[in-house]
Amino acid sequence: MPPSHAPAKREEVLRLLKRHHVLESLAERQENERRDLLAQMQRRENLVELERHLRGLHPADLASILASLSPDERLLVFRQLTSQNAALTLVELTDEVRAAIVAGLDRRELVTIVTTLDSDDLAYLAADLPEDVYREASEALLAHDAPFTLDTSLFPETAVGRLMRRDVACIRIDQTASEALTEMRSSTHVPEQTDRVFVIDARHLLRGTVLLPDLIRAASGAQIADIMLADVTSFTPEEPLERAAKAFERYDLVSAPVVDHVGKLIGRLTIDAMVDYLRVSSDQSALARAGLRGAEDLFAPVAVSVRNRWPWLALNLCTAFIASRVIGMFEETIMQLVALATLMPIVASIGGNTGNQTIALVIRAMALDQLGGTHMQLARKELTVAAVNGVAWGTFVGLMALVLYHSAPLAAVMSAAVFLNLLIAAIAGVAVPLGLGWAGRDPATGASVVLTFVTDSMGFFLILGLARLFLV
Amino acid sequence: MPPSHAPAKREEVLRLLKRHHVLESLAERQENERRDLLAQMQRRENLVELERHLRGLHPADLASILASLSPDERLLVFRQLTSQNAALTLVELTDEVRAAIVAGLDRRELVTIVTTLDSDDLAYLAADLPEDVYREASEALLAHDAPFTLDTSLFPETAVGRLMRRDVACIRIDQTASEALTEMRSSTHVPEQTDRVFVIDARHLLRGTVLLPDLIRAASGAQIADIMLADVTSFTPEEPLERAAKAFERYDLVSAPVVDHVGKLIGRLTIDAMVDYLRVSSDQSALARAGLRGAEDLFAPVAVSVRNRWPWLALNLCTAFIASRVIGMFEETIMQLVALATLMPIVASIGGNTGNQTIALVIRAMALDQLGGTHMQLARKELTVAAVNGVAWGTFVGLMALVLYHSAPLAAVMSAAVFLNLLIAAIAGVAVPLGLGWAGRDPATGASVVLTFVTDSMGFFLILGLARLFLV
Repeated sequence: MPPSHAPAKREEVLRLLKRHHVLESLAERQENERRDLLAQMQRRENLVELERHLRGLHPADLASILASLSPDERLLVFRQLTSQNAALTLVELTDEVRAAIVAGLDRRELVTIVTTLDSDDLAYLAADLPEDVYREASEALLAHDAPFTLDTSLFPETAVGRLMRRDVACIRIDQTASEALTEMRSSTHVPEQTDRVFVIDARHLLRGTVLLPDLIRAASGAQIADIMLADVTSFTPEEPLERAAKAFERYDLVSAPVVDHVGKLIGRLTIDAMVDYLRVSSDQSALARAGLRGAEDLFAPVAVSVRNRWPWLALNLCTAFIASRVIGMFEETIMQLVALATLMPIVASIGGNTGNQTIALVIRAMALDQLGGTHMQLARKELTVAAVNGVAWGTFVGLMALVLYHSAPLAAVMSAAVFLNLLIAAIAGVAVPLGLGWAGRDPATGASVVLTFVTDSMGFFLILGLARLFLV
Repeated sequence: MPPSHAPAKREEVLRLLKRHHVLESLAERQENERRDLLAQMQRRENLVELERHLRGLHPADLASILASLSPDERLLVFRQLTSQNAALTLVELTDEVRAAIVAGLDRRELVTIVTTLDSDDLAYLAADLPEDVYREASEALLAHDAPFTLDTSLFPETAVGRLMRRDVACIRIDQTASEALTEMRSSTHVPEQTDRVFVIDARHLLRGTVLLPDLIRAASGAQIADIMLADVTSFTPEEPLERAAKAFERYDLVSAPVVDHVGKLIGRLTIDAMVDYLRVSSDQSALARAGLRGAEDLFAPVAVSVRNRWPWLALNLCTAFIASRVIGMFEETIMQLVALATLMPIVASIGGNTGNQTIALVIRAMALDQLGGTHMQLARKELTVAAVNGVAWGTFVGLMALVLYHSAPLAAVMSAAVFLNLLIAAIAGVAVPLGLGWAGRDPATGASVVLTFVTDSMGFFLILGLARLFLV
């Protein structure tokens, strides 16, 4: 690691590392060891200590610590890492923190770091590195590596090919168990996350897999063809990762082969990549539900944050304006009975809440492939629930209105508006996510805005419209 | 499987299986095979076909199909399964569907099915089975199994012990690699999801682990003590699953040992259980965010659905009523300037939306342990973003009000209310999730209700209060 700017500020870095409680929460795992280390650092604050401390941390832990530091502090700590540790930490970082660190390093530093990566990890970083850095690093790799290793970066981010690893342990179908074991013994390197080896024939076509325990336990003369599992879940690089993740989850896979269109083994997917994918996509959908397009770095510049958030605010402001125009149509009615202005947000709000409950259930069922041809059945059920809720809450809200305003007609209008808005919310709660799904949009993101727009507008329209008809 | 009610309705079941597109989406995987089967079933609808078809499906697929069927249809299909397949399918089902099926079967059917399970799976189902069924099945197991196998059901649902498996492949630290391999070869059964074997000493204390590839590749005379990894991430049965899931994700584990308080090896956790746990908890938090306490079966009886949903609606109705009373305080002001009634929902709505964006980011940072001592830094940043947004959107909304109502003072009040409500939303967006976290509550569930309550009430209060001060 180039020592460039670091030495002058090492005390600061040591102070930082102590300050952040992240370290302590990690320490829970190997509590005594880490606590000793921290105490040691407190006593003799010097660079050797810091480096030794950082060397003892897993790149995943380093990534977590870096994310919790401010941008300046991140670079300070990052520059204390060995090139290899720095490179592995880059791989573990979230996209936005990685981008911030890459932007802070100069070209030479970056090249020194990323040339320590293997081809799979380098390909994974491809999109986030400056083009010339990536080119230089991959040329250095090509010099001592097979030329086919670099194309995973060409697949779209949501395709299996993007997370495929090329480090595959494979054996041939015409071998015996002991021949396969002997060959494995002489290989220089068996990749991580290997629970099974892949069986290929002379043409490199995938024929099956053998679990390692089965290979160990096979009689030494047993033919691979006899002990392998021929019915294998495999993927092509073009398949969506979503489908692969579901298969891993459903069939409890640890690793699975990736084949090309003729069935040739070209790589594998491993469960660690799938777990990361599941976490990132559930993260992203939680953020998307609040209208954030990407994971925003906690310490992103204000301009970046504003830009990331404004499209959603603009959209919501539009729908709020339209709902507000619905009220505008009835200003005369409100002037005659100002209690309506007080009560109308309640009608809108209870509609939005019940509708969002329905949406949550429908989206979950869609994600789990549980909605066969049962849409009408589901709509009927949700309508029934809404009718029951509508009678109960409508009566309750009507009574409250009666207590507050001593007007039976107003109470009746309020009850009717709540009842009808709950029915509308139930229909919208089923129809909106299904409609978005059919239109190829992500229902988890958009459904709630559309629904709230419907229930707000209709809530205002129902209470004010009924009031105009029957009260004023 | 007892054929009880099934034969009479087999045509119906076959029709059902064809109708539900779930089958077709599963068929994507092994498309041709399944499509042939379906075609075959269409031609000669008979019980043999159905049984053969069902036998070809993985229990996880069966569970997914069952969830998409209505309650009657579920029992029809379930009763066609072999006892063993039925039992494994029960394990794979979601809690609510499992409960529905268990309720529909009689005692004898249940016992026949669940006695085919191994002790880990039986323990996993313990809470969902009638007590006498569980007792009978576990006594049957005890007759031919070790007596220590049944206590995982005693741990709380969120503890490591609950998902611990007892099927551990272990070797002794004083063995050589070839002795260990020979012993493994002679064992009757090597458990699933075995990527490593655990190393114990004579007192059954955990000393390390050996990855299977390393074991295979070790020189035959090598001592286990020399090739094992001594630095192992292990868990106790009392630890929270949340922490274990994070460790699996962070360190890319496939399996990890569980030890008791003195360090004795008592079981292991495997990645498949962690993946299920992650999925279920992200599922539950999505539902909880909409105010559903548990995953609700799509076809749950109306009474169950109403009961599941009402506490949330009651809570929201309370907050809506309080916000409505804020408006009630200003009815005189509204009578003098009815445009306020039209414009006030916009102020409330934009506050709610920006606040929820902040909440989403803060909750994510909390989940990833990224908030060290940086709360003030974060609050300052969010306030800056809110101020920028407040000036921009406040001006815009003010201009819209000017166009609609030709009143500069009204436009100014509107702008000021939006600006101030965005600042309040930013503070609440940081403070509410942190406060809930400190209070030991789940911020993902409650933060949004509290925030919306604040931004609604303050939105109404700001525009109406400013109007009373400056306009009327």
